[in-house]
Amino acid sequence: MKRAAVLLSGGLDSATAAAWAQGAGFDVIALSVDYGQRHRQELEAARRVAAQLRIQDHRVVAVDLRAIGGSALTADIAVPKDRNEIGGDVPVTYVPARNTVFLALLTGLAEVVGASDLVIGANVQDYSGYPDCRPEFLRAFAEVARLGTRAGIEGMRFAVHAPLLQLSKAGIIRLGAALGVDYGLTLSCYDPPGGFVHCGRCDACRLRRAGFAEAGIADPSTYAETPGAS
Amino acid sequence: MKRAAVLLSGGLDSATAAAWAQGAGFDVIALSVDYGQRHRQELEAARRVAAQLRIQDHRVVAVDLRAIGGSALTADIAVPKDRNEIGGDVPVTYVPARNTVFLALLTGLAEVVGASDLVIGANVQDYSGYPDCRPEFLRAFAEVARLGTRAGIEGMRFAVHAPLLQLSKAGIIRLGAALGVDYGLTLSCYDPPGGFVHCGRCDACRLRRAGFAEAGIADPSTYAETPGAS
Repeated sequence: MKRAAVLLSGGLDSATAAAWAQGAGFDVIALSVDYGQRHRQELEAARRVAAQLRIQDHRVVAVDLRAIGGSALTADIAVPKDRNEIGGDVPVTYVPARNTVFLALLTGLAEVVGASDLVIGANVQDYSGYPDCRPEFLRAFAEVARLGTRAGIEGMRFAVHAPLLQLSKAGIIRLGAALGVDYGLTLSCYDPPGGFVHCGRCDACRLRRAGFAEAGIADPSTYAETPGAS
Repeated sequence: MKRAAVLLSGGLDSATAAAWAQGAGFDVIALSVDYGQRHRQELEAARRVAAQLRIQDHRVVAVDLRAIGGSALTADIAVPKDRNEIGGDVPVTYVPARNTVFLALLTGLAEVVGASDLVIGANVQDYSGYPDCRPEFLRAFAEVARLGTRAGIEGMRFAVHAPLLQLSKAGIIRLGAALGVDYGLTLSCYDPPGGFVHCGRCDACRLRRAGFAEAGIADPSTYAETPGAS
């Protein structure tokens, strides 16, 4: 059975990407990255998702991106709330070179477990201006994986899959629901007020909530507040 | 003053690369990676080298590559000793995707501090078969840095410099000596027996010792054993 190494953040997108890889016939090895994110509950969400999807090998790699800083997700910068315009400029929640770091770690894991396929739940709309979710970035990274590994030298053809790249949030939710993802286990919020509650007001919460509404699928999430209510 | 972000491992090569960047007129920001390596004294060596070179901003990012494993440097695999043939096959000291991970972290730091130039002490001979030291890998990585960062989107032209790439170990030592590097502060050994003593028998020690001999420069290192003496 062909293996795929999948980035599993604990959010809605990566859970769907992991289910997509299983649906495509891959034996999935999952990697979560503990990067000093404020929203640490997402690591617990990743564990729950991995268990639900019966992923046997789920690794958590710690990398302290706080030593680099530069983002609302890792430094002492406020997470923006109630933004009406999502998209366009790169937001402060952008973590410098995050997906490059994550894909690099995923490449290392893929090499160790003999996986040729890397899967990331990157999405053009959701990531609202993050440069490291663009198709040209992902293609360039596949070349780095091929050239920078022993497996690549020995002929392994690495592929980077981003199956959600062009989907709307509603489209992702419909796909995942069809694949049996339990979205009640996932956490999207950048600034969760505690437990598995979503703040309801950061970009990620707003996109999540609107996605369930548009998909016409019941939203299992608990939101602390309605957007713009404060 | 133009800034460069430099990977500083604490070894002979990266110390020389940092001094090269200063000699080329860059304000150097240094990054060391605590990746769970067995040879942890190299982090202390990096601090000493940074102090000697008067690098004001030296950061240490922890990333636990032991969760990935697959190398003699991070897993419970013996470091090879007394190899007469260095080069050819990828050795067990190869850390899966290590330079990809390191350059990814360096890219994040470069973005935060406004550095356009990434410097790595990669060397074709020294790394004895490591795929992620090859020129084509480094070129592909520069493209990833450009495409995967906000700075790249905004027009920053990233360059990846590997000034030692084609030098012999003796050539590196001559270059660094001319630039004022104090090699007594550096540590190359993969398996140091303690303190700042070199084992004298791993690939890195053998190359280091031979390099000083060939350069005709006094070797300031302490070696525990002569190669092949056991």
